[in-house]
Amino acid sequence: MLKLLPKDTRALLKAALGEIESDTVFTNARIVNVFTGEVLPGDVYVYDGFIAHVEYKNPGVIDVPVKEKVDCHGMYLIPGLIDAHMHIESTMLTPRNFAKAVIPKGTTTVVTDPHEIGNVFGVEGVKYMHESSEGLPMRQLIDIPSCIPSVPGKEFTGAVFTSKEVEELSSLERVIGLAEIMDFLGVIHGDERMLSEIAVARAHGLYLQGHAPMVSGRMLSAYLCGGPESDHESSMASEALEKYRLGLRIDMRESSLTKNVKEIWKGLKNSRYFDTLDVCTDDRESEDILTVGHVNDVLRLAIKEGMDPIDAVKSATINNAREIHMEHLGAIAPGYVADLCVLPDLRAMDMHQVYFSGKLTAEDGKLLADIEDRTYPIEERDSMNFRPLTADDFVLKAPIENGEVTVNYIEYTAPYSAITKKAVMKVKVENGRIILPDADTKFVAVVNRFGLDHIALAIVKGTGNTTGALASTVSHDSHNLTIVYDTPEDALLCANTLKECKGGLVTVKDGKVLALLPLPIAGLLSKLDAEGTAALARKMKEADREVGLTELENPLLRIATLALPVAPEIKMSDIGMIDVATQEVVPVFVD
Amino acid sequence: MLKLLPKDTRALLKAALGEIESDTVFTNARIVNVFTGEVLPGDVYVYDGFIAHVEYKNPGVIDVPVKEKVDCHGMYLIPGLIDAHMHIESTMLTPRNFAKAVIPKGTTTVVTDPHEIGNVFGVEGVKYMHESSEGLPMRQLIDIPSCIPSVPGKEFTGAVFTSKEVEELSSLERVIGLAEIMDFLGVIHGDERMLSEIAVARAHGLYLQGHAPMVSGRMLSAYLCGGPESDHESSMASEALEKYRLGLRIDMRESSLTKNVKEIWKGLKNSRYFDTLDVCTDDRESEDILTVGHVNDVLRLAIKEGMDPIDAVKSATINNAREIHMEHLGAIAPGYVADLCVLPDLRAMDMHQVYFSGKLTAEDGKLLADIEDRTYPIEERDSMNFRPLTADDFVLKAPIENGEVTVNYIEYTAPYSAITKKAVMKVKVENGRIILPDADTKFVAVVNRFGLDHIALAIVKGTGNTTGALASTVSHDSHNLTIVYDTPEDALLCANTLKECKGGLVTVKDGKVLALLPLPIAGLLSKLDAEGTAALARKMKEADREVGLTELENPLLRIATLALPVAPEIKMSDIGMIDVATQEVVPVFVD
Repeated sequence: MLKLLPKDTRALLKAALGEIESDTVFTNARIVNVFTGEVLPGDVYVYDGFIAHVEYKNPGVIDVPVKEKVDCHGMYLIPGLIDAHMHIESTMLTPRNFAKAVIPKGTTTVVTDPHEIGNVFGVEGVKYMHESSEGLPMRQLIDIPSCIPSVPGKEFTGAVFTSKEVEELSSLERVIGLAEIMDFLGVIHGDERMLSEIAVARAHGLYLQGHAPMVSGRMLSAYLCGGPESDHESSMASEALEKYRLGLRIDMRESSLTKNVKEIWKGLKNSRYFDTLDVCTDDRESEDILTVGHVNDVLRLAIKEGMDPIDAVKSATINNAREIHMEHLGAIAPGYVADLCVLPDLRAMDMHQVYFSGKLTAEDGKLLADIEDRTYPIEERDSMNFRPLTADDFVLKAPIENGEVTVNYIEYTAPYSAITKKAVMKVKVENGRIILPDADTKFVAVVNRFGLDHIALAIVKGTGNTTGALASTVSHDSHNLTIVYDTPEDALLCANTLKECKGGLVTVKDGKVLALLPLPIAGLLSKLDAEGTAALARKMKEADREVGLTELENPLLRIATLALPVAPEIKMSDIGMIDVATQEVVPVFVD
Repeated sequence: MLKLLPKDTRALLKAALGEIESDTVFTNARIVNVFTGEVLPGDVYVYDGFIAHVEYKNPGVIDVPVKEKVDCHGMYLIPGLIDAHMHIESTMLTPRNFAKAVIPKGTTTVVTDPHEIGNVFGVEGVKYMHESSEGLPMRQLIDIPSCIPSVPGKEFTGAVFTSKEVEELSSLERVIGLAEIMDFLGVIHGDERMLSEIAVARAHGLYLQGHAPMVSGRMLSAYLCGGPESDHESSMASEALEKYRLGLRIDMRESSLTKNVKEIWKGLKNSRYFDTLDVCTDDRESEDILTVGHVNDVLRLAIKEGMDPIDAVKSATINNAREIHMEHLGAIAPGYVADLCVLPDLRAMDMHQVYFSGKLTAEDGKLLADIEDRTYPIEERDSMNFRPLTADDFVLKAPIENGEVTVNYIEYTAPYSAITKKAVMKVKVENGRIILPDADTKFVAVVNRFGLDHIALAIVKGTGNTTGALASTVSHDSHNLTIVYDTPEDALLCANTLKECKGGLVTVKDGKVLALLPLPIAGLLSKLDAEGTAALARKMKEADREVGLTELENPLLRIATLALPVAPEIKMSDIGMIDVATQEVVPVFVD
């Protein structure tokens, strides 16, 4: 497993002593010291990517040999920011294009959970994320997806992970943990899959990242007894405080979709200690990264909510490093990696300069590091593995020819919420076909795209699209092709369009494609950079609004959790509607 | 390596859920929460040694099956105290007798460095400390001695440790770290011994305990770049602060001899964070443990100096656990070991009850746990391995028969200090024998007791004994037999007396033994319990005062650092006087 140690310890020692030339000295800096909470004038000497010496006693006196002098002009010098938990797939970017986008924001280390591509391409998908992030001017550490599929036997994806896969992947150099253990019921009830994965992870020295939304009381205690060490799912102040008191490290998450900083800070602000309060972004779209920021934006928000800026910096640096059990990371001190940000204002959190392993990578928002484009065979692999479809495949056939039938259907609880409930209604049938009662009620199809001839059809109300069809191969967590539609013809157009471009998002209206966001890598990632991807995403959002999705600030991923059978209360999978609580298949037609 | 995990995870999960009977519930407690710094009413459920659940929402409502209810009567409940660094040998007790003494003080975990017995019996000595502490109602974790001998080639002890010994010992279950890396010059200058030991320790997942007295500036940076993570040697406020800022975890040490809490707190009290401020006792004599206390006493002192009691408790619990990289230790939370203390007053720090792994071990200062006496073959091994001596062996022979010669000698800088300096004087010689000029000047002999025919003689001034002779086989770090004396006859009596009892401490006056403290195990440990050992130590101190050692509060170990060639500025070894700075042998007679 990765240890952040110098290539040549003896050389680093000599540089510390001033006996050999250091590469760089950062001078005229106000150093944010995450051990004491002080801001101190000082000089930082870097040798071969590591901090060799920090001079607090005589700042400005450069009396040993050094190649380059970086004048920080009295600005703050903080450790490079760390993201304790995120999915690169959520940005729809490749690891290399992702790096280009976040480095200028001051993010020097991320811990990624390649859960999405793991569902599509299995172990090979995870290996691709590892391989393609090699040699980058930022550190992409990898946690092994723990819950592929999310609900075994009730959804069919491209892979099944067990302790065997955890074992295999733990040998990769930058694999450091077991990713968000979200089958919390599995942990709590001692299911073999979860306990054996945890045991193997422990045997390999991996840390255990938790994920326990709304889990409380004795259930929460059991979850902790099972092993998970952290949680980024607190959505209420009281929830965060309960977990924090029990020793779970709390990640303040602010993703593109889920915004928890305010509530978490509200819950924890009266704590005497913040040493287990950490920071993550989880899921951030390209556009958000470009316009708002990344980890720096989470800190900005936390500070706005009242968190002290020094405490905030500490959360995203040494605290996050401790969460992921990574030594020599997250502080400005001898022996630590020289990941540094120079910035004029801790509240604004805009980086003047970003250094990774002592090398300048970005300045004033602009990437300076050279990140060469590389291609990998798996990027060309077609993940849209289903037979040629016809419109008839999308016809939800009633058990009668004409008349009225009673159906179970999925109903969203609010236009902005991902929470659904099971509902029942009567619908008209004409010539064996169901007549949708209103514009807000649609058909939904989930097409298995991993070689199984599964097409599940049902009815959904409240997605927001009042006309046309939406389709996506980003469809957590199975990432089967999910389509919400009026007419079988529109559904077929969606399916064929996405098959043609190897996956992505599409919006169709009146038999025409309004917008297409191709995600040809695994049906999840674009080949474009952040700017290109964001531009297509913007067009897609406009198209989404055109078909009726006007209630959501960000309609892009409205249907991306419709097939997530671990989110309350009833969801789709490629075998039908799933009651999340009971994990039973719910028939469309009520007897 | 030891991981603190339940024997049966599924059973613990069930206990957490209340589905099976817990062993104990602690109720009516004021729980000190080391994650938030709160003191909260709550109930703590324990199953098979681990905390299964902590109930903060409805304290007092015991609505699940539980065998035993412990009413804490509104007292505080804190995690069992941890000693981050200590030498059991300093107590002169066996590991089992040590346990009997410290458990009632609330110490449930210690990290021992069996450095002393390692110098005497090598790997076997360390294994003895491991084996004989097995199954105790406290946790004795072991760090591997890193510097045996302290100065290779300049002192000869019973063993030489290299990376090979580190490799061998790292397989022992309760071995968790590499002990105080005190050859800081070796680290700083990249010596093979230190760097290879550190590399092997890292490969086995051991943490690196530091030891860097007065090391500062670039030297300190180099030491940190070499790997050590902590330090318990700060004696000045500014020293502690410099180290703390650079990321060394600082142990507040308060030993029987070295009292640093006051200065360290002075140096760090204005820090914004105390998450890397830890606690240790290092060396505590039996008597001090019995009368004053152990870790609880260090906390008491820190609180007296102004540290908040909650912060103090945190330092000696979760902070210390983090220092030693030990999970599930040092907090009252689900999944943590159920090491607990019940106490009425956080400032007084006297334990009403002590629990180890959920079992009551002591109450109101009295040990309740049953610690059976066990014997081990090594306890009978004679470590006094030198040839029969004569008085003549102790005659420092001058190069002339009569007249005056100039000698180099060792001079203590103060009656209470262990620091010495090299000095020069003229002395009279009569019939080839040196005439000591005054009562405060004595001969010193160091007799190798590990089979080498080394007897080094020299002159020392300022030990305090104005008459008679003192001798000790506790003589850091080589533990060769060290004698300070007037007459060769008294020296011989010391040597023979200690050889007879297999080592220990002895005070002689006018050809008679005034007091004897036998330490038959390795010449370091008593077979008596703390009370018995302390009683003999008290008598020894009286005898020490009788021969003139009246200036020191505790004269017991006055000569125990006279043969420590890493402590400034000039010390003895079995090959002669050693200039500590140059590591050169200093001749007695000046040409």
